[in-house]
Amino acid sequence: MEGQDEQTTGARAADGSHADIYGEDGAILSSFLAQIGAAIADRDTLTLKREVDDLHQSELGDLLEALHPEQRRALVELLGADFDFSALTEVDEAIRRDIVDSLPNAQIAQGVQDLDSDDAVYILEDLEKEDQDEILSQLPFTERIRLRRSLDYPEETAGRRMQTEFVAVPPFWTIGQTIDYMREDQNLPDRFSQIFVIDPSFKLLGAIDLDQILRTKRSIKVEEVMHETRHAIPATMDQEEAAREFEQYDLLSAAVVDENDRLVGVLTIDDVVDVIQQEAEEDLLRMGGVGDEELSDSILSTSRSRVPWLLVNLGTAFISASVISIFGATIEEMVALAALMPIVASLGGNAGTQTMTVTVRALATRDLDIYNAGRVIRREVVVGLLNGMVIAAILGLVAGLWFHNPDLGFVIAAAMIVNMLAAALGGILIPLFLDRLGADPAISSSIFTTMITDVIGFLAFLSLATWWLHLGAGAG
Amino acid sequence: MEGQDEQTTGARAADGSHADIYGEDGAILSSFLAQIGAAIADRDTLTLKREVDDLHQSELGDLLEALHPEQRRALVELLGADFDFSALTEVDEAIRRDIVDSLPNAQIAQGVQDLDSDDAVYILEDLEKEDQDEILSQLPFTERIRLRRSLDYPEETAGRRMQTEFVAVPPFWTIGQTIDYMREDQNLPDRFSQIFVIDPSFKLLGAIDLDQILRTKRSIKVEEVMHETRHAIPATMDQEEAAREFEQYDLLSAAVVDENDRLVGVLTIDDVVDVIQQEAEEDLLRMGGVGDEELSDSILSTSRSRVPWLLVNLGTAFISASVISIFGATIEEMVALAALMPIVASLGGNAGTQTMTVTVRALATRDLDIYNAGRVIRREVVVGLLNGMVIAAILGLVAGLWFHNPDLGFVIAAAMIVNMLAAALGGILIPLFLDRLGADPAISSSIFTTMITDVIGFLAFLSLATWWLHLGAGAG
Repeated sequence: MEGQDEQTTGARAADGSHADIYGEDGAILSSFLAQIGAAIADRDTLTLKREVDDLHQSELGDLLEALHPEQRRALVELLGADFDFSALTEVDEAIRRDIVDSLPNAQIAQGVQDLDSDDAVYILEDLEKEDQDEILSQLPFTERIRLRRSLDYPEETAGRRMQTEFVAVPPFWTIGQTIDYMREDQNLPDRFSQIFVIDPSFKLLGAIDLDQILRTKRSIKVEEVMHETRHAIPATMDQEEAAREFEQYDLLSAAVVDENDRLVGVLTIDDVVDVIQQEAEEDLLRMGGVGDEELSDSILSTSRSRVPWLLVNLGTAFISASVISIFGATIEEMVALAALMPIVASLGGNAGTQTMTVTVRALATRDLDIYNAGRVIRREVVVGLLNGMVIAAILGLVAGLWFHNPDLGFVIAAAMIVNMLAAALGGILIPLFLDRLGADPAISSSIFTTMITDVIGFLAFLSLATWWLHLGAGAG
Repeated sequence: MEGQDEQTTGARAADGSHADIYGEDGAILSSFLAQIGAAIADRDTLTLKREVDDLHQSELGDLLEALHPEQRRALVELLGADFDFSALTEVDEAIRRDIVDSLPNAQIAQGVQDLDSDDAVYILEDLEKEDQDEILSQLPFTERIRLRRSLDYPEETAGRRMQTEFVAVPPFWTIGQTIDYMREDQNLPDRFSQIFVIDPSFKLLGAIDLDQILRTKRSIKVEEVMHETRHAIPATMDQEEAAREFEQYDLLSAAVVDENDRLVGVLTIDDVVDVIQQEAEEDLLRMGGVGDEELSDSILSTSRSRVPWLLVNLGTAFISASVISIFGATIEEMVALAALMPIVASLGGNAGTQTMTVTVRALATRDLDIYNAGRVIRREVVVGLLNGMVIAAILGLVAGLWFHNPDLGFVIAAAMIVNMLAAALGGILIPLFLDRLGADPAISSSIFTTMITDVIGFLAFLSLATWWLHLGAGAG
């Protein structure tokens, strides 16, 4: 580990760039933070500009997140025109809004003008409609048209995430002409990995990867080496679906086309990586019963977003409670049941969560479909039965010894097996059913699964116990 | 939606490639599957080769996953040398093993020879050491050395995931020389987005992106336009850490260097996307109490991997049960407590899971660090208190009405607030503490959090109830 760190730092220091601002734990070094904080307090613009200048946009973003809100706004104000707006694409939404709201629209217009269009849209889309319009009106004509076009596509579509800067050439050009054109043109995008081939009406004909251009002789025509674009993305396609295309076909970038198959932009892998991260995060948060929460959200908005889930849970908890209350007489007769019954429910809940987690994930990655659903259901039931028997054996033994009552051990063991089977079935059938209905299985599966394992757990254990107590009473 | 689908299909059909093999739900069309199944049954090699030839490796992978195991093996056998081994990198591990085990080592050696080294390593790393050696011994010398070097790095490191094919040139070459070299050399990697600059000892000096080469005049020297590589990745770096570098700096590819800073390979974004997916999936599965499970795992291995978590849960459930059993006398006195107590525990568990989910995710993305930990803990406690009061009010009201006992309503409401505070503290402090210890908070946080909310829930409710009953008894 030590050798590694040395090497990384060494490589960074060697290129004369900024010394590493991160400590071993991945957080920004407190010494660096103190230095920046002091410079902000002294309104020492010179030091700030020098320190911040070398930072990558994501490093500046991390710095902004680590500062106090007042410091943050002061830093942006002090940097003035030297503040790199692309850092705003790297911070939480609440922080971005806070900074943007503190700036005059003229400065925002100035700032977004230097950005790639996808980054500019990312910042503008959060603003009020009127602020958006005022900022756009201060931009040069082509810039304004481009951003407006992206903003007109619905949220979370490929059209919103695309970059409108791209290189496009006609099919009859030679590779040599194309290379010369790129050497001359000053308006190229910052980075690109393929160029597109279009007809005079901007209709997409194909694409060439840059490595292909470099392997091809200058005299060859573009149309001879271009590949037809199998994976052109409609601008209205959902970003998640677009991300799936990237993943499946290992794309680095893809053409985005409008409804007439005309090239309007390019979607690049770095935006897609963010989408993939976001979607995976969404599933995880939803399964944990939280919405699209960020660490910087306010107390009230956090509370509001979590209460609905708790209220639903309160409803299902009352259902379990009423099941228990049916067996009040039995529990009064034998109070050990009250102590043991949560064990049956809790283990069923956990086993159900295991099955449900695997199912929800498999549905999200499309690994679970009509071809293997039957096989997976059978597998889950058998696993539930096996694990049920293991847990039931131990639980039965311990409970029997604890309360000096072997019969109680048999009763709880039987209830446990029943509940583990219910958990397996619920854990797979509920998400499958919700998915078939078009609902997001990540959101609601967990409520229904634990409701089933609670109800079945209490019901199986207490009804078996009642039957066995009366049997004993009858025999006695 | 309809227009979109038409467009996509149209684009694919237009380039003369295979008609889309996927249905609207993203699963492989059953008609296509039936056609392939029939061809396999007839051992109709000609049809199979024609149908499979146009498929992308991931499409062939999806097809393999949709087939029955016997069909799968038969398909690979029938395709013979025409089977694209890269499809094996797209299927579940169990399926990959099954197919590879059914093939003679000579055919595997032949198959992996056509692959990029990272794909070849991905297939070889699962094999037994002796099979690996036998296959490697059948490969040409340079190929063998390259794969051996990757395989010698530990699992899940950058060295294992890197591609050993890359383009490297000396710093004194001109851009023109470099382009001519690429036009002549037949041994270039399949796809690349940057070329590297090295000294005679293979020490990494810098890199040039392909778009930079295309913008630069032929007479300029490589060393004048290359950028020093800030983000060279040590071969022994964990793949997750490498993925984080890619994400933070929006890299498309990065040089991988050995302990002497010599260039040994290149890590590309498509491999990194897989790593990101995998890591997000791991967190989700671990929080759900399952290990590195895949849908195609056998019943026994699934059962074995899930039992340990259930056993730990059985242990914590016994702790809760013994808390309840302390209050046996109180429950006997008032059996309504038995019905209501799981409500307090269940809601606490859910609130704790909400906090814990947010915390685990923030730790994984490094959004939570020493600078905001204090603020986030305060926020969680206040949210817990707020949500606790909302839930307590409803719960107290309903419980009081249900059992015609307003005092019982106050008792359960008070217990609920206590448990929600415990849930908030447990949900954030436990993952933070585990993370500080170097443990993975995704694995064990959920056990400890629900243990705390169960124990505190039962304890608060039953002890308050006991105190209040005795108060009543004392007063009466």
